Amino acid sequence: MARRARASRNRDTTHAGVPASPHIGRTLPFFEVLDEAQIEKLEGQVDWIIQDVGIAFRDDPEALELWRREGANIDGDIVRAPADWIRSLCAKAPSVFTQHARNPDRSVTIGGTNQVFAPIYGAPFVRDLEGGRRYGDMDAFRDLVRLTYLHPNLHHGGFVTCEPCDVPVSKRHLDMLYAHMTLSDKPHLGAITEMSRAQDSVDMAEIVFGEEVMEQNCVIMGNVNTNSPLLVDKVVTEAARVYSTRGQGLVVVPFILSGAMGPVSTAASVAQAMAEAMMVCAYVQLLRPGAPFVLGNFLSSMSLKSGAPTFGMPEPVISNYAIGQLARRAGLPLRCGGSLTASKIEDAQAAYESADSMHSTMLAGANFVLHAAGWLEGGLCTGFEKLIMDADRLGSYQKVLSQGLDVSDDALARDAYGEVVPGGHFLGCAHTMRNYQTAFYEPKLSDSENVESWEDAGSQDMRARANARVKQMLAEYQAPPIEDITREALEEFVAKRKEELPDAWY
Amino acid sequence: MARRARASRNRDTTHAGVPASPHIGRTLPFFEVLDEAQIEKLEGQVDWIIQDVGIAFRDDPEALELWRREGANIDGDIVRAPADWIRSLCAKAPSVFTQHARNPDRSVTIGGTNQVFAPIYGAPFVRDLEGGRRYGDMDAFRDLVRLTYLHPNLHHGGFVTCEPCDVPVSKRHLDMLYAHMTLSDKPHLGAITEMSRAQDSVDMAEIVFGEEVMEQNCVIMGNVNTNSPLLVDKVVTEAARVYSTRGQGLVVVPFILSGAMGPVSTAASVAQAMAEAMMVCAYVQLLRPGAPFVLGNFLSSMSLKSGAPTFGMPEPVISNYAIGQLARRAGLPLRCGGSLTASKIEDAQAAYESADSMHSTMLAGANFVLHAAGWLEGGLCTGFEKLIMDADRLGSYQKVLSQGLDVSDDALARDAYGEVVPGGHFLGCAHTMRNYQTAFYEPKLSDSENVESWEDAGSQDMRARANARVKQMLAEYQAPPIEDITREALEEFVAKRKEELPDAWY
Repeated sequence: MARRARASRNRDTTHAGVPASPHIGRTLPFFEVLDEAQIEKLEGQVDWIIQDVGIAFRDDPEALELWRREGANIDGDIVRAPADWIRSLCAKAPSVFTQHARNPDRSVTIGGTNQVFAPIYGAPFVRDLEGGRRYGDMDAFRDLVRLTYLHPNLHHGGFVTCEPCDVPVSKRHLDMLYAHMTLSDKPHLGAITEMSRAQDSVDMAEIVFGEEVMEQNCVIMGNVNTNSPLLVDKVVTEAARVYSTRGQGLVVVPFILSGAMGPVSTAASVAQAMAEAMMVCAYVQLLRPGAPFVLGNFLSSMSLKSGAPTFGMPEPVISNYAIGQLARRAGLPLRCGGSLTASKIEDAQAAYESADSMHSTMLAGANFVLHAAGWLEGGLCTGFEKLIMDADRLGSYQKVLSQGLDVSDDALARDAYGEVVPGGHFLGCAHTMRNYQTAFYEPKLSDSENVESWEDAGSQDMRARANARVKQMLAEYQAPPIEDITREALEEFVAKRKEELPDAWY
Repeated sequence: MARRARASRNRDTTHAGVPASPHIGRTLPFFEVLDEAQIEKLEGQVDWIIQDVGIAFRDDPEALELWRREGANIDGDIVRAPADWIRSLCAKAPSVFTQHARNPDRSVTIGGTNQVFAPIYGAPFVRDLEGGRRYGDMDAFRDLVRLTYLHPNLHHGGFVTCEPCDVPVSKRHLDMLYAHMTLSDKPHLGAITEMSRAQDSVDMAEIVFGEEVMEQNCVIMGNVNTNSPLLVDKVVTEAARVYSTRGQGLVVVPFILSGAMGPVSTAASVAQAMAEAMMVCAYVQLLRPGAPFVLGNFLSSMSLKSGAPTFGMPEPVISNYAIGQLARRAGLPLRCGGSLTASKIEDAQAAYESADSMHSTMLAGANFVLHAAGWLEGGLCTGFEKLIMDADRLGSYQKVLSQGLDVSDDALARDAYGEVVPGGHFLGCAHTMRNYQTAFYEPKLSDSENVESWEDAGSQDMRARANARVKQMLAEYQAPPIEDITREALEEFVAKRKEELPDAWY
């Protein structure tokens, strides 16, 4: 069945709206914030954690047994290992790989100088101007998948764009996967919360891509958190056994609130995250050498008033720059950052924090950026307007990264100086006429009109404009084509699994 | 009189509230976006403009005569000169200098690894939540000077925080100078719009600082725009003759809207700005070798819909990074960027654009940043709330720049790992107790509470919180001490000049 569906899927997969580049090919140099001495000190700390402190692999005897068999030092469930061995295992992971999309024009390359933006992941709540804040549901989820599909600055669908809380936890992964696979043709992630759900994800991807393609290529990835500090639970190792043993991608992200899940210092938290993720990378390479792996880092600062996580602050900003450099040294693709904020609404706080967070994320060279759009309230809430507002700004980062500064002869415009006198203007000169249409990135939601025009148009703030644009995008949405046979096979799979599974809300 | 006032001014100039550092001492490395070939190509373009295209020095025979006498090639009012001569003149300007403040603890160092933030300059309108948008007046001006004085993240007072439109143009510089000199003790700029106003500024500075101090030190600066493209008018050269010949600072800023006052390409506009500013720097060094000079750059992109300038966009972002590198190569202090936006209000657009603009400004190494806070509506309007919102965020940049990533032994927190087990937490460990109070920058206006607490407190957006903080700051404001004799001398000077000058509204 899977093979049949796959055999004919390439007939008509291109259509209007595919962006010029399915991901960002960076030409801008990297920003190296650490000198050699700082790097060595941080790498020494990573090695010390791996060798002397150790990382616990808990509640998964099979993982511990593999480590024991391969010669690691096991003490209870704490794994310690020579750092050079762990580094040599990490070196088996590809520094660049492609995640194939259902539409081949949308396949993304992850690692190296490539950067991929994906929306928020995991929020139980959603918010928009009309509906306010409410639990996420499948309707909202589908609309968020549609918006992500439509927006040219989002390269990847992510996965849990919001939690569809109206579907039992035991079954919602099936509906989410079906939505990503049919309402969009961008690449996406799969479920990880339980081994059988990870398996369902890989099985459904096999229906779309076929067994052979899947054996040779990454077509789906799982994204998992370690239980910082220093703890890898079975959610991680089981996801690795499902995704990595099939050659599919695994993104492993220590989430560290400095002072809670890591020391209250940024350097120590960065090193700890690096050690945790590298130990999982090594585990993955023991399972299947060469399996695609993304080293993740999610570091948050803390409010002293309440202990709440804070975002867009100098500590996570500098951590983005530092982890970017460390990941490049390790030769591993990096996930970090995003358009992060603690604000509850799409106000200036949300935008300041998201922009500082995302500016550093993009300059840091993050290869895969989850939460690049839509994040509100420390990740508890997906904003419909916020999704589109953030995505609008991503186009600016895309231009900075991919184009840098063009100093070609045409860019230097010497001919224009033959036409324009001192105090004159370049508005009508030949160079301007040749170039003005591509000279500037103009985000759809930024209003640059004068105050009179803006007032005449109703004095709308950016939220109001984003709200109108969300509605317009959803009204104009058309699903990308999919072969009937593939769709039916997916529907059959989902129906069968829903019959087999109990309704469970945990 | 000036001498008498000065003689006793140092008696009591310190008081509470002086920030730990009056400017930012950067330890973070610079971000070098251009490779050697790109730099050489841009510098070649700068040289070509200086040598072959030329810069007009208009309506000021004295300036042209100086150029002629020194051997430049004069064609009408266009000055062309060997680029290596211009570069050698620019090399006479100090790469680092100090602008002394009335309170010596607030003196700022400009150039090198030092970065100084100042508020918006020149807006005819002001806006706050209660009063809406209206013409600026002296009351608003004084409040903006007070807020700038009070905010620890603003190092420098700037000058025209808004235009006080209720005072005749011919006299308002006197009231503005008196406000800066008495309501604040931070360094500030002087007037430039006419030679006599520049002279009044220098004369009033002499009352505050005394002739001797002024002869040896920079205590005031003028900030002037060239008339891009390729035109330097007498506002610039006369300001240079007043400020620079007295050894005071001059900031020269080509304002280029790409496609209008420069070619529609970022690289060409950056090179043109560099050539214009360097020619003025060379002129200044002919007037007085070693006079402090700040090379300015203000580049804006354009909306294709309306031709209006746009801000926070990828083109000015990349131009900040590029001009930072070029200015360092030329050994000149740099002014660029700011918290810029085209938004009319303090909404998410304003914050996204301001943050991307300012993040690149700070990383670029801008040594003197005018418009670092308060800018709205393409510079036409000073926002009271925006001033405080932007300034709040500047503290984050200050920490990134001054601290970078601390990898000291204490930062690596190895002792903490002896206390914390896998899956545990660092909240109470000794390392956290030692460090938590200084671990995180927490801006006053960011709300990181959970949604319930935020709703209980009235669901205020950042604007509303900023409005409350503006009121609180102004209510608590206390003027810094000033010797009666100085104040009286300033008052006398202002009164005398106001009697001499006609009321003129242009």
